[in-house]
Amino acid sequence: MNELIPHIAPIADAALAQRLQHRLDNKTKPQGALGRLEALALQIGLVQQTDTPLLREPQVLVFAADHGLAANGVSAYPSDVTWQMVENFLSGGAAVSVFARQHDLALTIVDAGVRHDFAARDGFLDCKIGPGTADALRGPAMTSAQCVNAIQAGRDVVRAAPGNVVLLGEMGIGNTSSAALLLARLAGADIDVCVGRGTGLDDAGLERKRAVLRAVMQRHECARTPLDALAAFGGFEIAMMVGAALQAASERRLVVVDGFIGGAAIVVAAALAPTLLGYCVFAHRSNEAGHRLMLEHLRADPLLDLGLRLGEASGAVLAWPLIASAVLVLSQMASFESAGVSNREAP
Amino acid sequence: MNELIPHIAPIADAALAQRLQHRLDNKTKPQGALGRLEALALQIGLVQQTDTPLLREPQVLVFAADHGLAANGVSAYPSDVTWQMVENFLSGGAAVSVFARQHDLALTIVDAGVRHDFAARDGFLDCKIGPGTADALRGPAMTSAQCVNAIQAGRDVVRAAPGNVVLLGEMGIGNTSSAALLLARLAGADIDVCVGRGTGLDDAGLERKRAVLRAVMQRHECARTPLDALAAFGGFEIAMMVGAALQAASERRLVVVDGFIGGAAIVVAAALAPTLLGYCVFAHRSNEAGHRLMLEHLRADPLLDLGLRLGEASGAVLAWPLIASAVLVLSQMASFESAGVSNREAP
Repeated sequence: MNELIPHIAPIADAALAQRLQHRLDNKTKPQGALGRLEALALQIGLVQQTDTPLLREPQVLVFAADHGLAANGVSAYPSDVTWQMVENFLSGGAAVSVFARQHDLALTIVDAGVRHDFAARDGFLDCKIGPGTADALRGPAMTSAQCVNAIQAGRDVVRAAPGNVVLLGEMGIGNTSSAALLLARLAGADIDVCVGRGTGLDDAGLERKRAVLRAVMQRHECARTPLDALAAFGGFEIAMMVGAALQAASERRLVVVDGFIGGAAIVVAAALAPTLLGYCVFAHRSNEAGHRLMLEHLRADPLLDLGLRLGEASGAVLAWPLIASAVLVLSQMASFESAGVSNREAP
Repeated sequence: MNELIPHIAPIADAALAQRLQHRLDNKTKPQGALGRLEALALQIGLVQQTDTPLLREPQVLVFAADHGLAANGVSAYPSDVTWQMVENFLSGGAAVSVFARQHDLALTIVDAGVRHDFAARDGFLDCKIGPGTADALRGPAMTSAQCVNAIQAGRDVVRAAPGNVVLLGEMGIGNTSSAALLLARLAGADIDVCVGRGTGLDDAGLERKRAVLRAVMQRHECARTPLDALAAFGGFEIAMMVGAALQAASERRLVVVDGFIGGAAIVVAAALAPTLLGYCVFAHRSNEAGHRLMLEHLRADPLLDLGLRLGEASGAVLAWPLIASAVLVLSQMASFESAGVSNREAP
């Protein structure tokens, strides 16, 4: 344990797991009939160290930042879309805004390093580390100090937030590149299989992106530790999600992970503190090419598989009702005994 | 068109589909980035014949009935569990009760033919055709008249219900047997691959169930039309769901289909009126052995895949928030123009 990486207790507790399983098995349904939801209810009980878990004040935290690497044409959209989408989040017109409103979830947008000056307002936090990262093709995307500051800032955001669940998301033109680079380096995978079309590159764009990312991998051949790789490849929003996830787990909050870029933050964070993974719920398998490999690397079993590829925490928010349902199985379903339902094999 | 089977218009409308796709493509997200939800939004627009669809007063309808075939030990639970679970639905302790409450969905339990006398109360409809079906091993589960009456009753239930969406579910000890039999006969599949463990048979129980169902298939070798098969194999709740689905589609309501047994009703109904399928949203792929085959037969792409095997409309209700989200994409998301977000490829 050091000052940057908090202590995260393993969630394993055999006696509590047995109590939770017993409670689930006595609910009025065949054993295991709620499938993945039952495993989820058990996990959340272990996270909260109780057989009567409750979800309080879930917080959607969307971290936004720009990427120097975007100058090399690795995205179908210009970098200005990052700040424009932040404005869209805040005025309620983006997918994550709509879905968060649907489920009555508090939404906070964190400026981790967007190349734009935002006016202060409700639901917005200014944690800007800098006006976008540097171009990772020419040098590290961040300095070590920036990387540490971003992680600390992510921890601070969660520390100040209420509730016992965080749903983490991001916005940053170019950030599927950072995510692919982090996955390739930390999972020891070929960069080519980690690279996808992001917001929608055509075949030529995909080839260009692959060529750029191969060069970035080579440029930072020596960035091998999680923190060195994070500093080399960026971005500020990913580093802040690393800190946010670590802090949340250290406080025994549930961490709902969105798609490919949120997942990359978990790849980094779990490399720093493997016990983090017990606190994570993976919302969905996205359509981005490298996500399947990433989920396998994390041994993650996501809730949804809807061909999403949007980010913004949109997938995490779409999965939210299932997480709430899992907890309601424990808190609201009748037992065989309380409902007077026979729980016996037919003779 | 005859009196039993209503006319169901095809949902196809190329001009409207183009308008809907255009609206989706102009929302602030990369084209197609919301994956399956975008296809769903388009389908709902076609069902409602508008590019601004809305979901009004969705109704969860759970049809319950007993099965004479259950006397042959095809279920892990005794038939009394059917009425006991109906009481549990009504007192709010069952999974579907909890999830319907979570999503503020109206829940109605329909007695299609339970071997029990229920007291009248809110949220309960008495449409009892008889005290359970007859034993399909000895003769048809229902008479032709009972089959027609059950379909008509299902149509009447929907006709009297408000709103433009129905979520259909069921309860009936023994009804995975009826569903497997209907699938085998109407899809022309081997009964052995259609049979699963239902509420949780062990290996010996599964073998016994297979042997019984093989004998039932042979006993009703001549029941080849959808209505003959339905009468032969039962049950009353499945026949009522057939009527409910047909009526709903004929009124251009969306039909949310639950798991294996609800799916069997759609297999029958779609054999009677193939245009029905345009109105159906398949909620999930269940853990019941024959469900994958059934979904392939129906060319269905379900929303969830969570290893559920509970019935009760529980899977349909769990999928509900995704359906609501799909419609909100159209009604609440900003367009690139309205949000001032660039929708251009980077140079």
